[in-house]
Amino acid sequence: MKIAVLGGDGYCGWATALYLSAKGHSVAIGDSCVRRQWDRDLGIQTLTPIRSLSERVEAWRKATGNTLEVFRGDVTDYDFLSSMVSTFEPEAVIHFAEQRSAPYSMIDRKHAIFTQMNNVLGTLNLLFVLRELRPDCHLIKLGTMGEYGTPNIDIEEGYLEIEHNGRKDVLPFPKQPGSFYHLSKVHDSHNILFACKIWKLRATDLNQGVVYGSVTDEVALDEALVNRFDYDEIFGTVLNRFCVQAAIGSPLTVYGKGGQTRGFLDIRDTVRCIEIACLYPADPGECRVFNQFTEQFSVLDLARMVQMAGEKMGLAVEIDHLQNPRVEAEQHYYNAKHSKLVDLGLEPHFLSDSLLDSLMNIAVKHRNRIDPSLMLPQVDWRRPGNHRRRRLLDAAEPIPRATRKRAETGAAREKRGTSPLPSP
Amino acid sequence: MKIAVLGGDGYCGWATALYLSAKGHSVAIGDSCVRRQWDRDLGIQTLTPIRSLSERVEAWRKATGNTLEVFRGDVTDYDFLSSMVSTFEPEAVIHFAEQRSAPYSMIDRKHAIFTQMNNVLGTLNLLFVLRELRPDCHLIKLGTMGEYGTPNIDIEEGYLEIEHNGRKDVLPFPKQPGSFYHLSKVHDSHNILFACKIWKLRATDLNQGVVYGSVTDEVALDEALVNRFDYDEIFGTVLNRFCVQAAIGSPLTVYGKGGQTRGFLDIRDTVRCIEIACLYPADPGECRVFNQFTEQFSVLDLARMVQMAGEKMGLAVEIDHLQNPRVEAEQHYYNAKHSKLVDLGLEPHFLSDSLLDSLMNIAVKHRNRIDPSLMLPQVDWRRPGNHRRRRLLDAAEPIPRATRKRAETGAAREKRGTSPLPSP
Repeated sequence: MKIAVLGGDGYCGWATALYLSAKGHSVAIGDSCVRRQWDRDLGIQTLTPIRSLSERVEAWRKATGNTLEVFRGDVTDYDFLSSMVSTFEPEAVIHFAEQRSAPYSMIDRKHAIFTQMNNVLGTLNLLFVLRELRPDCHLIKLGTMGEYGTPNIDIEEGYLEIEHNGRKDVLPFPKQPGSFYHLSKVHDSHNILFACKIWKLRATDLNQGVVYGSVTDEVALDEALVNRFDYDEIFGTVLNRFCVQAAIGSPLTVYGKGGQTRGFLDIRDTVRCIEIACLYPADPGECRVFNQFTEQFSVLDLARMVQMAGEKMGLAVEIDHLQNPRVEAEQHYYNAKHSKLVDLGLEPHFLSDSLLDSLMNIAVKHRNRIDPSLMLPQVDWRRPGNHRRRRLLDAAEPIPRATRKRAETGAAREKRGTSPLPSP
Repeated sequence: MKIAVLGGDGYCGWATALYLSAKGHSVAIGDSCVRRQWDRDLGIQTLTPIRSLSERVEAWRKATGNTLEVFRGDVTDYDFLSSMVSTFEPEAVIHFAEQRSAPYSMIDRKHAIFTQMNNVLGTLNLLFVLRELRPDCHLIKLGTMGEYGTPNIDIEEGYLEIEHNGRKDVLPFPKQPGSFYHLSKVHDSHNILFACKIWKLRATDLNQGVVYGSVTDEVALDEALVNRFDYDEIFGTVLNRFCVQAAIGSPLTVYGKGGQTRGFLDIRDTVRCIEIACLYPADPGECRVFNQFTEQFSVLDLARMVQMAGEKMGLAVEIDHLQNPRVEAEQHYYNAKHSKLVDLGLEPHFLSDSLLDSLMNIAVKHRNRIDPSLMLPQVDWRRPGNHRRRRLLDAAEPIPRATRKRAETGAAREKRGTSPLPSP
């Protein structure tokens, strides 16, 4: 199958592109690599030293003989996107190419607006391109479980049968997203549903849980294929961050009580879910929604699991309850359905001690690249514009000595393309 | 009360600004007047010859002694908006400043993207400005009944108590908007609800029905205060358009079967609803939703009412069923609640023969400004980019003689600031 992976240089996108290529599909990556620029802007970096997209793709060719076609550009650029689609002629388009961090979207007004414009406009462009050039192509769009929020009723997969005043209808599940990023995904979902209705496009909206892990069979083939591993407060997902904290003896940073419950999945299941969606496409006019996660945990559950796994490795792991920078319920009912992907053949990798070990080992291996300060929350939902690093990096304000040093180091590092952050 | 009316040069905004001023409130208008440019771009114009914003405001001062403060700028311009809010210090902000036409948003990709960017970005700017400068100011935002679509259950005012698998919650009413414009309002609603939650802003989201009428007591005071009256397929609301068609002997253009049922209200109720919202503000942190309409009609109901009113005036009125350019249910259940504004004191003006007479008389009075071709639907939901007038006005394409003449006439007219379109 010819599959285009938009955002194929990213955390989930790269792993997905390799997996689909390994499975024999013809894969093209579309990416502007702008995420790498955001890292530089924010003074953060992936724990694992990832190669340039060209090097990665070449390493994949050497390792497997498989070619990944690369289209460099941004999905908000209509000409780029239509050119890519008309050239590659995909049967399925996987759309990862969005700003994917809730804290990023809450840094300040500009980041909020950028996130919504970037995500909503990119997806609108894609819908129009598909209608014009490839109306039968299957759109597989990454949504998020965070679109639902934490309602006091069971969360269904996208739609809900509602009985009200003696009448019934099946309606889109009501959404209560918790950040400007999550809101952008809700906007996308509404736009996609509408496009399917009026243009008979076929779409699968994958409301994905929080992804953990970094290594897939494909990524493991060669050091040059290593996947991104974010551990900072902006892009790091919670379990990855806890493992890094445990590995270096920092307390695990639980926000508030830690009763926040979410759906989680292993990145090895992410890539398989995408393939399943490709193999069983939505019908024309159908906007299908799958909840893409395998297990539910509270944040405190996860912290305790990491604590125990750490103790087995001889690490003393503390748990800190920080004041919650987010506005969210810290104790709530949560029961989200997630059977559709399993019905189509997903065999989940459940969270295990060995996976936690492997994450901590990655952290230990790249210990000299870790900056513990990057894991402390600075983005405050209630006070946009208060982000310390963002402010310090703003050229309009004086930069204190210590930070200036790091910023310069960062700039110098970018020129050389290597070199770790100063070790803690 | 100090009230800012964003979009105060528009159809509902102008009538609202005058009404609130007449009621003794201190009113400021914020507007970029870009809507007047869109008319020029599309080769359309209001049936009633409206004056420039400066002339209107001066006429109001002469008629009543009341001053309307004017801030010229665009709500998508953050600096403009924050400057206006910090200078005027409003207690309530009425936000009409959006692209408000469903067909406009469906012309082609550019108009779809423009509509969502303009509306969503402007509202986001406003939310951030209020948080930073006037967190206690009451935001009154114009939404639309079209956000709900036509579900097979009763439509409640913004929220719905849902019982599911033995548990209950009150959740945002599920939305099924029918155009990229309606979608932009749904996006706004989600963003506003979130901002109220995290920043404790106070907001009232007015899901307004289809407005008809043009004359309010204030507008009637002087010819120079005349309100906009759109009758074209892009900006004309259905009842206004039917009355114009009846007045000039054109068949009423019903799309499809005409069973499409919607909520409607008189513009004199629009302005009163806004005042009620101002007088009874939402609480801090509350995002209150009112359904702002007074009666439900199907499109065919309206056509028949106009037909009968026309016959009383000696006009032979035909009804044409055109192929529906929209994708929408033409027969459906529709029962939308609308009691909250009545509970707060709204005394509706129900649709009457005399109102229909008055609309037809406006049409007869300005008969020489009517171009019947502007009332035929050219925007096709299924085929964006197919809009004839849009294409003809595109400089990249040759302009046929007849159209070029009208376009030039339009340009010349703009220079002079008067002069009607050639009469039909």
